[in-house]
Amino acid sequence: MQTLLDYYSTHHERFIAEWKEFLSFKSISTDPAFHKDCVACAEWVRDHLAKMEFNAQVWETASRPVVFAERLGNAAKPTILFYGHYDVQPVDPLDLWQTGPFEPEVRDGRMYARGAEDNKGQVFSYFKALEALLGTGADLPTIKVIIEGEEECGSEALHAGLPGWGDRLKADILMVADTGMVAEGLPTITMGLRGIAHCELRAYGPKMDIHSGVYGGMVLNPLQALSRLLASLHNADGSVAVPGFYDGVVPPSDKERALTNGAPVNIDEVVSFLGVPLAGGEKGYTPLERRGLRPTLEINGIGGGYQGAGGKTVIPSHAVAKLSMRLVAGQDPYRVLDAVVSFLKKDAPEGITIEVVDDGVGGPALQLPAESSVVDLAQSAIRKAFGRDPACTWEGASIPIIPLLSQAAGAAPLLVGFGLPEDNIHSPNESYSLRQFEEGFRYVASFYSCL
Amino acid sequence: MQTLLDYYSTHHERFIAEWKEFLSFKSISTDPAFHKDCVACAEWVRDHLAKMEFNAQVWETASRPVVFAERLGNAAKPTILFYGHYDVQPVDPLDLWQTGPFEPEVRDGRMYARGAEDNKGQVFSYFKALEALLGTGADLPTIKVIIEGEEECGSEALHAGLPGWGDRLKADILMVADTGMVAEGLPTITMGLRGIAHCELRAYGPKMDIHSGVYGGMVLNPLQALSRLLASLHNADGSVAVPGFYDGVVPPSDKERALTNGAPVNIDEVVSFLGVPLAGGEKGYTPLERRGLRPTLEINGIGGGYQGAGGKTVIPSHAVAKLSMRLVAGQDPYRVLDAVVSFLKKDAPEGITIEVVDDGVGGPALQLPAESSVVDLAQSAIRKAFGRDPACTWEGASIPIIPLLSQAAGAAPLLVGFGLPEDNIHSPNESYSLRQFEEGFRYVASFYSCL
Repeated sequence: MQTLLDYYSTHHERFIAEWKEFLSFKSISTDPAFHKDCVACAEWVRDHLAKMEFNAQVWETASRPVVFAERLGNAAKPTILFYGHYDVQPVDPLDLWQTGPFEPEVRDGRMYARGAEDNKGQVFSYFKALEALLGTGADLPTIKVIIEGEEECGSEALHAGLPGWGDRLKADILMVADTGMVAEGLPTITMGLRGIAHCELRAYGPKMDIHSGVYGGMVLNPLQALSRLLASLHNADGSVAVPGFYDGVVPPSDKERALTNGAPVNIDEVVSFLGVPLAGGEKGYTPLERRGLRPTLEINGIGGGYQGAGGKTVIPSHAVAKLSMRLVAGQDPYRVLDAVVSFLKKDAPEGITIEVVDDGVGGPALQLPAESSVVDLAQSAIRKAFGRDPACTWEGASIPIIPLLSQAAGAAPLLVGFGLPEDNIHSPNESYSLRQFEEGFRYVASFYSCL
Repeated sequence: MQTLLDYYSTHHERFIAEWKEFLSFKSISTDPAFHKDCVACAEWVRDHLAKMEFNAQVWETASRPVVFAERLGNAAKPTILFYGHYDVQPVDPLDLWQTGPFEPEVRDGRMYARGAEDNKGQVFSYFKALEALLGTGADLPTIKVIIEGEEECGSEALHAGLPGWGDRLKADILMVADTGMVAEGLPTITMGLRGIAHCELRAYGPKMDIHSGVYGGMVLNPLQALSRLLASLHNADGSVAVPGFYDGVVPPSDKERALTNGAPVNIDEVVSFLGVPLAGGEKGYTPLERRGLRPTLEINGIGGGYQGAGGKTVIPSHAVAKLSMRLVAGQDPYRVLDAVVSFLKKDAPEGITIEVVDDGVGGPALQLPAESSVVDLAQSAIRKAFGRDPACTWEGASIPIIPLLSQAAGAAPLLVGFGLPEDNIHSPNESYSLRQFEEGFRYVASFYSCL
């Protein structure tokens, strides 16, 4: 390990310079105006990997290109597939940036630029660990790398391509460096990400908005019907009332609950940040369990009738609500969505027509077993590199492409990342500390040493 | 009666010319830019009444002026107070008018102009009946006239002035010509108008909109809390679930129910117009009873979270709903509003703060007893003038100033008007047929003849 850290010290200045090159590409994926920048960035990644003896390619797709690279190694070791993304979020509001988002600058030990952390910084610390391992003659397994260019806008090319790319991607372990730590300096294994599905509910009543005096009492108000329907989605104990919603949910094991609740999350700080007690979700679970180990059904938006200043005595013609479900291990997203849509559509009251539109599945949950050789491996690597046990966290959010990629590659996912809230990803003045960068390097170097 | 109709025929051309003068004032009350036009219109009304031997005055107020006029008459007869308004609605969208809204024109037997019906047309047919009665030597009672200039924007001056004007306004019968007929050619007594109160409900959760993945299950979603609260406002049978809401409600008599249901309203046409069955309101009452004789609590608007295209996985910081109540005889609007506000505020779930803002009372219900000498009088007058029985209707809408004026004047209200839906009041190309104008004249002439 010391040899690798020496390599890091020796080449540190060059690492920073190359990282700045990577960050200078305006690889904003959601805006087609930056398509050329995305292509140039993909080519830079390809060339960078080629210099490390990878067979590296840029795969053209119908949208942004995907970088794929492969380096054959010791076949006795598990094949590794590494996933990351070269695309970044848009940069507005530009006037809030202290320095240009694509003019990377190190200040006070932090690299400032769009993508400094998400995901170029994390990807690049991974690349530099591979370089150090190669440069110091490590016995490496076969390593595959897939770096996509649309993580920030729906992974269209990956969704389209995965069914056909399975053979190329085949691996034993899928390593992902796109997550964070639960506290500074505490390497964290993300044990779970929730799946996601969504739909929009529309309740239609009279043909047009009508006078609530002239027609009130005659006509069923779509807002009243919508409220009743939405209220019926949850039981009094906070659980979801939709039949079938919990089908297949694997109850968390005692170990999972213990690890979840043992994460060094300061609940008082969360409460203070949000300004409310953590009083949502199902009774019988702690807040961290409800967020990480239990599925939810949330109303994300609602609207109908008059919302301006003052009053307007109207019965509106329709009302809408946007819903999304976060799913856990064992739930089939398509079956859950079907159950919710059926529940919404059944028993529409007389005078109200219910429609469900824009229903779709983002992806299933991803959940690592608390007891698994891959997790054991990561724990060992972290203990060796950092001299401490990692934290384990079950996140409430979703990265839908990860479970799909894991399935396509037949690889066990392993998510270890070094992000922190102060990195301000997706916001102005995104940054990544050189310490976090070095932690990422250290973890990857240690991981391959432990294989 | 024939003498009066002869008078109408003889002077018809002049009536139309004067009516056009009245309609040419841009007396839009809601826009201060038209204040001078309102003053000029009030002075024109004053002068017109002065020519008919009224002691007529323009009362300055803090907003638009009020015209008050009085003509002493036979003290053995009941004193009449006539109410109307000289102000009109705004005229936009102007490009939809076939001729200028303040350039009155008769086409195909209809007078087209803003205010042609509402309320200048109805008021002016009343004036012309008084002129005819005076011109033919009728034995008239003491008649008072109050024509306000803010009916279309809240009657501010009347609300402020009524407590002090009671003595001047004192009368036995308050005649109002600001309502309509249930069918063409069928004079209609409006037996009831519902009262109105309103409020806005706000449910506050976390300090800011938050990620529904990261926090979903930890935090109670304000949209879920709002939906539950709104759903709890009504029972499964459609009745209002707020304790105290129905306090004081006078159950409709058999005669009222029979008259209400006997109104020649084509329910099939209403259903076809609205596009929905009349399935709202309380079980156990007909649609016309639910609209005219029963109170309601309606949600007029609702909003919170993301309402744009697509989805956004957010738990919003707050949600709002606008509510209004339509009230019937016996309900104290202030007590009903208190009951609703208390209901909304009680039992807020943990993590949600409920606020009720903009709560206020428009006015109480107005309801004429089905058996009353004033209604008998109107029925006799209509039978005499039209050779048929009038219809009786209990309206669902509100004209809050009428019950307050009735109380201040100590006068029994009597609402007979000749409006029809095709008059397009408040809309472009407002009009009033010469037939309706003549029907108004005929009713008023007959009414005074019956006193």
